[in-house]
Amino acid sequence: MIKKLTFLLTLMLVVTGISAQQWNLMPMPKSIEAADGAYRIQSEGVTVTLQGNYHQRLPMNAAWFLTRLGKRTTIPMLPKQGKEIVVKVNRAGTVKLGENESYQLKVTPTEVTIEAETDLGAIYAMETLLQLVNRDAQGFYIPAVTIADSPRFPWRGLMIDAGRHFMPVDVIKRNIDAMAAVKLNVLHFHLTEDQGFRIECKTFPKLHQLGSNGEYYTQEQIKEIIAYANLRGIRVMPEFDMPGHTTAWMPGAPEIASAPGPYEIEKRFGVFGATMNPTSEKTYKFLDKFFKEMAALFPDEYMHIGGDENNGEQWNANPAIQKFMKEKGIKDNHQLQAHFNKRLLKILQKHKKKMMGWDEIFQPDLPQSIVIHSWRGRQYMDEAAQKGYQSVLSNGYYIDLSFNARKHYMVDPLPDTTHLTAEQQKRILGGEAPMWAELVTLENVESRIWPRTAAIAERLWSPNPAAPIDDMYRRLMVVSQRLEETGSRHMANREPMMRRLAGTSNIQPLMLLTNAAEPIEGYKRHGSQKYTTYHPLSRFVDVTMPDAPDAIEFSLLLNRFIESKSSDTYVELSKMLTRWEMNHQQFAVIAKENPLLTEVEPLSINLAMLAATTNVMLKQLYYGKMLTKDDAAKMERVIIELAKPVAEMNLPLADDAKRILELVTDSTNTLPSTEE
Amino acid sequence: MIKKLTFLLTLMLVVTGISAQQWNLMPMPKSIEAADGAYRIQSEGVTVTLQGNYHQRLPMNAAWFLTRLGKRTTIPMLPKQGKEIVVKVNRAGTVKLGENESYQLKVTPTEVTIEAETDLGAIYAMETLLQLVNRDAQGFYIPAVTIADSPRFPWRGLMIDAGRHFMPVDVIKRNIDAMAAVKLNVLHFHLTEDQGFRIECKTFPKLHQLGSNGEYYTQEQIKEIIAYANLRGIRVMPEFDMPGHTTAWMPGAPEIASAPGPYEIEKRFGVFGATMNPTSEKTYKFLDKFFKEMAALFPDEYMHIGGDENNGEQWNANPAIQKFMKEKGIKDNHQLQAHFNKRLLKILQKHKKKMMGWDEIFQPDLPQSIVIHSWRGRQYMDEAAQKGYQSVLSNGYYIDLSFNARKHYMVDPLPDTTHLTAEQQKRILGGEAPMWAELVTLENVESRIWPRTAAIAERLWSPNPAAPIDDMYRRLMVVSQRLEETGSRHMANREPMMRRLAGTSNIQPLMLLTNAAEPIEGYKRHGSQKYTTYHPLSRFVDVTMPDAPDAIEFSLLLNRFIESKSSDTYVELSKMLTRWEMNHQQFAVIAKENPLLTEVEPLSINLAMLAATTNVMLKQLYYGKMLTKDDAAKMERVIIELAKPVAEMNLPLADDAKRILELVTDSTNTLPSTEE
Repeated sequence: MIKKLTFLLTLMLVVTGISAQQWNLMPMPKSIEAADGAYRIQSEGVTVTLQGNYHQRLPMNAAWFLTRLGKRTTIPMLPKQGKEIVVKVNRAGTVKLGENESYQLKVTPTEVTIEAETDLGAIYAMETLLQLVNRDAQGFYIPAVTIADSPRFPWRGLMIDAGRHFMPVDVIKRNIDAMAAVKLNVLHFHLTEDQGFRIECKTFPKLHQLGSNGEYYTQEQIKEIIAYANLRGIRVMPEFDMPGHTTAWMPGAPEIASAPGPYEIEKRFGVFGATMNPTSEKTYKFLDKFFKEMAALFPDEYMHIGGDENNGEQWNANPAIQKFMKEKGIKDNHQLQAHFNKRLLKILQKHKKKMMGWDEIFQPDLPQSIVIHSWRGRQYMDEAAQKGYQSVLSNGYYIDLSFNARKHYMVDPLPDTTHLTAEQQKRILGGEAPMWAELVTLENVESRIWPRTAAIAERLWSPNPAAPIDDMYRRLMVVSQRLEETGSRHMANREPMMRRLAGTSNIQPLMLLTNAAEPIEGYKRHGSQKYTTYHPLSRFVDVTMPDAPDAIEFSLLLNRFIESKSSDTYVELSKMLTRWEMNHQQFAVIAKENPLLTEVEPLSINLAMLAATTNVMLKQLYYGKMLTKDDAAKMERVIIELAKPVAEMNLPLADDAKRILELVTDSTNTLPSTEE
Repeated sequence: MIKKLTFLLTLMLVVTGISAQQWNLMPMPKSIEAADGAYRIQSEGVTVTLQGNYHQRLPMNAAWFLTRLGKRTTIPMLPKQGKEIVVKVNRAGTVKLGENESYQLKVTPTEVTIEAETDLGAIYAMETLLQLVNRDAQGFYIPAVTIADSPRFPWRGLMIDAGRHFMPVDVIKRNIDAMAAVKLNVLHFHLTEDQGFRIECKTFPKLHQLGSNGEYYTQEQIKEIIAYANLRGIRVMPEFDMPGHTTAWMPGAPEIASAPGPYEIEKRFGVFGATMNPTSEKTYKFLDKFFKEMAALFPDEYMHIGGDENNGEQWNANPAIQKFMKEKGIKDNHQLQAHFNKRLLKILQKHKKKMMGWDEIFQPDLPQSIVIHSWRGRQYMDEAAQKGYQSVLSNGYYIDLSFNARKHYMVDPLPDTTHLTAEQQKRILGGEAPMWAELVTLENVESRIWPRTAAIAERLWSPNPAAPIDDMYRRLMVVSQRLEETGSRHMANREPMMRRLAGTSNIQPLMLLTNAAEPIEGYKRHGSQKYTTYHPLSRFVDVTMPDAPDAIEFSLLLNRFIESKSSDTYVELSKMLTRWEMNHQQFAVIAKENPLLTEVEPLSINLAMLAATTNVMLKQLYYGKMLTKDDAAKMERVIIELAKPVAEMNLPLADDAKRILELVTDSTNTLPSTEE
């Protein structure tokens, strides 16, 4: 009877349509219209029928779609037996900036139809479809819906820094798959750094031989990555950062340096002296040959030349360079770099590439064909747009800094408040999330990229206004699971890391703690110790994620509770707190005699105490009992004490504790905004 | 004070030496001698100093050793700052059958020294060293010890079937790393099957184009795999199974088939008709060109030609073949295959390869240079040895059949009871664990290979007699964690699979159930439903492992309890049972409205009831209370009922329940052997 009732209720939910709140989509489409009923997936599965003209990536993605749908439902997708999903495409897409990526998707109880100008749009439609698949006791279904979708910005990127820590091909491929699932379309591949020259160079093989410690991509692997990305509709733009950030070039090419050396690969992190010599013809001859090879290898029309953080040390110290500047009337290092960039631009143009660089390269005498990559601040982006330059935003999207998704989600390349003209606005191409790799290895890089980058992807794809933060987080947690189904290891690599730390497969107490803790933000970790490339980055902090999932769940629940004061929510919150409070006992068993958990134990204790404290305050809030200002002040001191970083980690619960404390303090009881 | 005491106790344990029981090594070395003290790893880490002549794989493995040690200890291994580990090698090793793989390892409180004839031995020594690393509250240490080690058999293999389900390059590489960690040295790469032709063939590109659905290894990838394996001291021997098991060849090469076709890639599993035509010169011309290409690609001196399970259907039905047999006086299909093999042998010899094949190929008129691969039964191996042929054992090592490690561990290529002469014994080269891939995908293949194959590796490396089963299991559980540190996903892929099934990241109740359940054994799963390559293999049974870790822990504890009747052990056992009993409540929450867990729910209920029943009997055993024969018979019926397979899974707890029942039944209370 209960089962029947549940069935009816479920049916009603489907029949009456699902409110916008309940779509588990990310990025949200441009337009979405719920209809009655649902397309149910039966035991013979579904088949995909392709119509029109398309690139071979379409059938391959249709197979990839069916594989994932099969894995999720456990249903064999038998060809020609299941219900049809019809995909109509007008023409083969080209993976390049500005290609048509739009699609229409219509789901009725009897059919699913996708229409798109190019296969790229059709591929995105299948990703949307996978996100729409839902289940109930009877099985899997897709709610009836009509979607019309196209991206807000044409440049939606993820930058992976393989220079500071090498990221093997399978890591790159997994990220490509995850990118496609949230409709990102540019992999910006940061291939050279002070700490590593990561690509085979056939013209100057000493570059990778002496610059990489053996960890570099062969050209075959680069081709494999490009082909793989192309299959998912993703451009691969390489970055060869210069003239600074080039220490790893110099063991193999000391002749292009601004100081004699000797050089060795940098093991520390920061800004270093090694810089190309912009006054020597040798440098340009070298770069001409170098870019000739790389331009042939990378088909994308853009090439990123970095250009950031040149500290000018070597230039200042080199008399020949100083003499050159005097002779040419070059006033400062900034102008000298402009001179370098102009020469570089000619080389790139010769090899048919458009130049992109970090915002330091922005100088008014460079042609408007270059693209400015804004990292130091939005103002450079707007200024560039006003002066006729195209630009891409990364300022605010630095996912290496462990800020919450919320912070990145609030950053818009083109906010409503913009004072740019319509024409200037067109020059804002989009954005990129840069994953700098000082503090990540192949083990945890995915847990720092995902799921957060999905929120940035939504910002770059979906129309304004952005969704409410709580709804963004709700969907982000669902999308995180969907990303795992593409093969992403952002969750799955954490368990082996914890087992290694614990020395046992019983990691439940560690899991609970790590899901409530976050790495400290910004550049603070570099303040706690001097990291080098020798650091294994296998400590507890390296397992934590920038959006601690349980802490987020608690925060969202708390928001609901503050609104509704519902007793159900109260009970749920209280349960979570009790679980945190009780966890330390279990944690202590595992931490006993374990030198790796010694530094973490105080965090576990703090969580327990913070949870206990919060539980008391929550109870007061629920029963409407206020604290005197004195007691509140005492409580606040306790919270502040418990909130202090431990082993480079924070407990975000502390912020919620403070919110509750405010609510139960005396008569000044006003509801604070969830956006602080 | 307590801390100090613990420290002293720990020290005492180290000082007094550690009993053989306590080594966490697998495979166990030939000779091991504990000494006093321990080599402690300090905060500056250790460095590896290489001496003598060696292949470049040695420094690369030293780096790999330091990476893993660093990850495990979280200590940066700073070059030239930490204590030295000295590795002395006489000459560069060659990765080929019979190469010297021996080593000596000496650990004292002040130094670690490795000596080996070749770098291959030195690499194994580093693997042993990593297994020796231990920890206490003060940090990490290696107990002082002297080890002299060399393998019992020169051929220690793992076969991976990439034909039935394609296994991407990263899966293969991870298995290679895991193999090296337990001193296996042959990757037998099963590349062609009815369900897939998995290697790029440049001479006949239609083979992979029409035979693989796009899932095949490019030759670049094959080279990459071979180079990677070589780095770890592992040979790569390809298998091209023929004349049967060749359906996937035929869409691209119908001219060599024994029937006109048309052909398509097989989707079902079993033995099929498609067979090469042994009577046509076209076949041999084709194979000559084919093996010419493959012989150049694979440097190993052996090539496996399969030769198994030819059902003869097509031969019987083809008048031309029948005529040929009549003319040549070939009496039956067996003789016809011998004819085929002799022609094949000439082709392989021409291309400088030695021939290996499954035991069907064993015919007295083939030269003694061929290697017989025994799969149907040991008797073929002994017979071959008696007749002068070398052989490798796989019968008893079929890890695809989900038998417990115990069963495989009991199989010895050369048991003490052998009646082979000393010379004949030398022809027993070793063994191979074949991972046939009907029921595994890239997601769970590792969980079916590891850790079980480590037990087989020990059987092939370590001297007789084998260790007691309980000790083998104790070490296997530790080695399983060590294998995870090489990157193996035998544990780490299970969590994402469970999250996908659960639709939530709260998988603890599923985890508990899966760690207590095993897939049904042998070929039984094929009996429950007709599997095809369309089956996603993402159900609960696909997550379970053939040695359910918690069930094994329970069994080992029970053995100790039966011996000792200690109350500590009783409490521990009882706790485990209670946890299983209580788990269903949690499981039910997740299973609610989840169509994927509907089939699993009865298993969870059975586990709860079985645990409750066992707990009652255990209590009786502890307090010495007997059951009447009648009550015992009732209890047994209950256990048998609860032990019935559910959704293709078993609960091994049922066996322990039966053991306990026997012990508490009436007066016939004798201790049963743990080996049933």
